Amino acid sequence: MSKDAALSGVLAPVITPFDAALQPDSARLLRHCRWLLQNDCGLALFGTNSEANSLATAEKLELLDFLVEAGLPPARMMPGTGCCALTDTVDLTRKAVTLGAGGVLMLPPFFYKGVSEEGIYRSYAEVIERVGDARLKVYLYHIPQMAHVPITLGLIGRLLKSYPGTVAGIKDSSGDWSNTEAMLNEFQPEGFDVFVGSESFLLKTLRRGGAGCISATANVNPAAIAELARCWQESDAEARQAALDRIREVFQGYVMIPALKAAVSHHAGDAAWDRVRPPLVEFASAQKQELVQRLGAAGFAMPGLERAGE
Amino acid sequence: MSKDAALSGVLAPVITPFDAALQPDSARLLRHCRWLLQNDCGLALFGTNSEANSLATAEKLELLDFLVEAGLPPARMMPGTGCCALTDTVDLTRKAVTLGAGGVLMLPPFFYKGVSEEGIYRSYAEVIERVGDARLKVYLYHIPQMAHVPITLGLIGRLLKSYPGTVAGIKDSSGDWSNTEAMLNEFQPEGFDVFVGSESFLLKTLRRGGAGCISATANVNPAAIAELARCWQESDAEARQAALDRIREVFQGYVMIPALKAAVSHHAGDAAWDRVRPPLVEFASAQKQELVQRLGAAGFAMPGLERAGE
Repeated sequence: MSKDAALSGVLAPVITPFDAALQPDSARLLRHCRWLLQNDCGLALFGTNSEANSLATAEKLELLDFLVEAGLPPARMMPGTGCCALTDTVDLTRKAVTLGAGGVLMLPPFFYKGVSEEGIYRSYAEVIERVGDARLKVYLYHIPQMAHVPITLGLIGRLLKSYPGTVAGIKDSSGDWSNTEAMLNEFQPEGFDVFVGSESFLLKTLRRGGAGCISATANVNPAAIAELARCWQESDAEARQAALDRIREVFQGYVMIPALKAAVSHHAGDAAWDRVRPPLVEFASAQKQELVQRLGAAGFAMPGLERAGE
Repeated sequence: MSKDAALSGVLAPVITPFDAALQPDSARLLRHCRWLLQNDCGLALFGTNSEANSLATAEKLELLDFLVEAGLPPARMMPGTGCCALTDTVDLTRKAVTLGAGGVLMLPPFFYKGVSEEGIYRSYAEVIERVGDARLKVYLYHIPQMAHVPITLGLIGRLLKSYPGTVAGIKDSSGDWSNTEAMLNEFQPEGFDVFVGSESFLLKTLRRGGAGCISATANVNPAAIAELARCWQESDAEARQAALDRIREVFQGYVMIPALKAAVSHHAGDAAWDRVRPPLVEFASAQKQELVQRLGAAGFAMPGLERAGE
């Protein structure tokens, strides 16, 4: 089971709002983070769904400072810090550790393809050595459909052996349950926390001793997902999982990031949330309406979300 | 044919040397650039083979300033400026234009996969609009095996229509001759310069009216490749192409970037050149020896390369 209560259960890869000039909108981001925390979700800032790789390192450093200064609890943060360039990854990771983040979620360098396991091992090892801080907790990030650079079981084994206590877990976004299961069997018993990348696998993961999930849709359906993570041993757990799946399925029919933003935009009455940075494209109004209708039919709501102007 | 003589023929995606702390080694880089220019190769700094995506934006900005201040001709430079983050791409592109670079080679944002043509179009359009400088010449970079985000013919057509005179050409690293041919047929006659990504296709490209090549192995075999680009209409062109292919084939049996560096390291007597940033791995000494022997058997030399200590 999870060794760090502040970083178990459900985390949201927090979506990043932009202003009219497509600069990060820190005030709206802070409001969304607070709502997620109120709904018992940790903050996996700068994840795939945060458009993290569409942000410059300086922009991420500034946002992280802002959120911690604004009083958000760093122990509940697992910012994404893995970039293509070693020096960017070190800068972001060092900042997260200095601010007291509970952990960091680290992509491997993802431009070069077909690189060796030794090369990926060295990427992680070099960052850990350079940051050189006993407080560092690294969660590996396996998302082969985007990175095309996988985190293999062999690599995890090597890293755990070299950096026990620092290499703390993984987010498995492969969508391949047999892979998640292999990680749960092989490494979770050693205290290596396995987070699955979608709440569709949350109940299965918790039943196998996993730590929880870090899921796109936790941005919009946090309370219900977090409730399953708390009540997974109760008799209605299967029904709760089925209810989560109905909402998830609607989102999976769309390009995920603009769909999440369209849902927040609609429920907050705040069209600023529609904006994305290219190469993503915001929803046209007809697509947004269709999404909202399908979500309504699946019983979707965002209780407690602050509406614009309130 | 090419509209810009300073940026036609052969360019090298200049390999980036690192010091013992894996920081960019600007003095060695400058020496290598000078040797490439003496051998009639332009400087496609910060390309795939430059480990550009293993460098932070600030590191690239600093190197570019250094090389121009050191007196290298910016008109002969086509630095890579395409990053995942819009703001990084804008910063690098603006710097290149300000310094007088002949053009920039721009990857599309490459983290998100399966993005729409509209999204990639907006990525380029937004950078061009933000830089907002009539001197800007953008060369698109099609390298689907690394970026997994293609530059399609449809996208080129749209960009050329919106930004004639700014969208100046493409580097096609797909290795798919039918794709290069389609670009040559459809867009080269409009003055859109097609560079192929390997000298293996140089003669074919020039015979079809293309601009030249931007090739990894121009880092180590610049004079002979540049000579074919000058003499392609002479009777011995096929023999020259065959000689280039023999050298290229040896390198293609290895991981390209450490192989290029191993060759320079050996011929310059300067082991500092072996270093790469992770996720790449430098050659072990046996592998380096084998490469050097195979190259020797293929008649490879690096005439005029300054040896360490000379």
